[in-house]
Amino acid sequence: MKSLAPIILTVIAALTLALNAWAADPLSSWNDGKTKQSIVDFVTKITKAGSPDFIPPAERIATFDNDGTLWAEQPLYFQLFFALDRVKVLAPQHPEWKVKEPFASLLKGDVKGALSGGEPAIAQIVMATHAGMTTAEFEQIVKDWIATARHPVTKRAYTEMVYQPMLELLAYLRANGFKTYIVSGGGIEFMRPWTEMIYGIPPEQVIGSSIKNQFELRDGKPVLVRLPEINFIDDKEGKPVGIQQYIGRRPVAAFGNSDGDLQMLQWTASGNGARFCLVVHHTDADREWAYDRKSHIGNLDKALDEAKTKGWTVVDMKQDWMRVFPLGSQ
Amino acid sequence: MKSLAPIILTVIAALTLALNAWAADPLSSWNDGKTKQSIVDFVTKITKAGSPDFIPPAERIATFDNDGTLWAEQPLYFQLFFALDRVKVLAPQHPEWKVKEPFASLLKGDVKGALSGGEPAIAQIVMATHAGMTTAEFEQIVKDWIATARHPVTKRAYTEMVYQPMLELLAYLRANGFKTYIVSGGGIEFMRPWTEMIYGIPPEQVIGSSIKNQFELRDGKPVLVRLPEINFIDDKEGKPVGIQQYIGRRPVAAFGNSDGDLQMLQWTASGNGARFCLVVHHTDADREWAYDRKSHIGNLDKALDEAKTKGWTVVDMKQDWMRVFPLGSQ
Repeated sequence: MKSLAPIILTVIAALTLALNAWAADPLSSWNDGKTKQSIVDFVTKITKAGSPDFIPPAERIATFDNDGTLWAEQPLYFQLFFALDRVKVLAPQHPEWKVKEPFASLLKGDVKGALSGGEPAIAQIVMATHAGMTTAEFEQIVKDWIATARHPVTKRAYTEMVYQPMLELLAYLRANGFKTYIVSGGGIEFMRPWTEMIYGIPPEQVIGSSIKNQFELRDGKPVLVRLPEINFIDDKEGKPVGIQQYIGRRPVAAFGNSDGDLQMLQWTASGNGARFCLVVHHTDADREWAYDRKSHIGNLDKALDEAKTKGWTVVDMKQDWMRVFPLGSQ
Repeated sequence: MKSLAPIILTVIAALTLALNAWAADPLSSWNDGKTKQSIVDFVTKITKAGSPDFIPPAERIATFDNDGTLWAEQPLYFQLFFALDRVKVLAPQHPEWKVKEPFASLLKGDVKGALSGGEPAIAQIVMATHAGMTTAEFEQIVKDWIATARHPVTKRAYTEMVYQPMLELLAYLRANGFKTYIVSGGGIEFMRPWTEMIYGIPPEQVIGSSIKNQFELRDGKPVLVRLPEINFIDDKEGKPVGIQQYIGRRPVAAFGNSDGDLQMLQWTASGNGARFCLVVHHTDADREWAYDRKSHIGNLDKALDEAKTKGWTVVDMKQDWMRVFPLGSQ
């Protein structure tokens, strides 16, 4: 055990440094400038008792998109990589996939060919890999995958491809009495098994797209079975609908990165009193990816225009973020 | 102002007494006996650090049915009284209702005749009174109604017909680190405007049945419009489905009073580790109502048998509750 001592001391020293840095500046991975200042100004004014902009803690709801806002989303949504990996795992049980698209192309390693079938092809892949098991079984499948899978480009764990400045922002808001929610087009049960550990967001504060569940007694034991049928799509117009359905309060702050977040931002911005809307603009091809109006994943076009018209905060990733990914993962 | 002093002093004295009683016994409206003891024993063992039954605070999820569990439900679900009142208010805008059932009977004061059309009649009444407006408009309608409406039998405000022992139980669980949820067959947006004030349960911890909402921009301003289309029925098999959808964790304690709660109780009971299930049995015709196996509202038959077989706690309202409604309302 003796040999561990220096490592432990180093870890403690690093943690102490990190904690001190946090105490000094909870948003230490954000470069100084108007973007960072807009966040601090908003939080300061709405938490100041007696201020005309004061918001009671119970109403401090902040909603975050996930893909492209809290973690990366290129070259494909990470949940799609999960589905592709699952197709390979499940292939031996489905000999028919050898000649059936989109599975046949996928199994030959031709991802582009498989996805050329568009949304119907993606829906087939998603249903084949996300339905047919119990909720408990699916949770375990996701946990196993997220613990071991690696991103094809960076070769890092997907959970290391979260944005350090956004982790700090989540913690900063919570330290100021906010309840932080994910409101994502991604699958709700794909996110819940790991969001608490990675983002500090518990399952009950995760809103996402879902398929239907069915209650059954199997040998007298109740289970919830995942059916191959869409229940809810939490994207675009669906985001305010999902927020109302799950939270029943309008957020006072919302964070997104694509046109899929536009309606959530509009819904948040139009509430009474002080409101904060932020769009992450992917401008850093060196440290991450650069994309916006023409991108197939995370298309940011109308929301970028509206952000400028309405004075929402736009994060220029290259300019505003001192660091993109957590220390040690880049 | 002088004349208010004695009243204020009396109120302070009463509050002090109430607070002292609470500190002495947080479940002071529960008679001593095995029912009350089962609650205290469960909470004690799962909160004791190092106990084999210890449950971490994040997992202390408790779900409560509303109608018949937290407030009364006789002679009709209170939400149905709301709908009937709304039919009267809206009638001038709907001259066709004079000759159209179930509205015609209702407007003549023949509630029984109107409801004789069964579920389709009820669905028509609900949709006519719950859809077609924005979520903000509906919230205000519910707030106005709940503040002024009176129960036809007791002539009391509906919010005074909540069960004092259950209010104490909610507070006791929260004081022990539980997150308390409503999981009701009633309308989610019918409950949310008042559950925080009455039960201390915020909107985001209310799960219920719902109709679909649609996002629209009206003159550039976003609204959510309530559509006359069922979204989700949070009853029977729907309750575990709703719990998974909204919370994403299995409760460790569940509270109900009818067969509509059976699947929620089964789902809760079958989790790993210590679990607590409770059924409120309405046995007190003097102070409230007495009903079970043959009742059309709050039918309690299979769940009563299963509670006995499985050793769940059954509250005998007459025996176990020292007081039914809050002091001052009975």
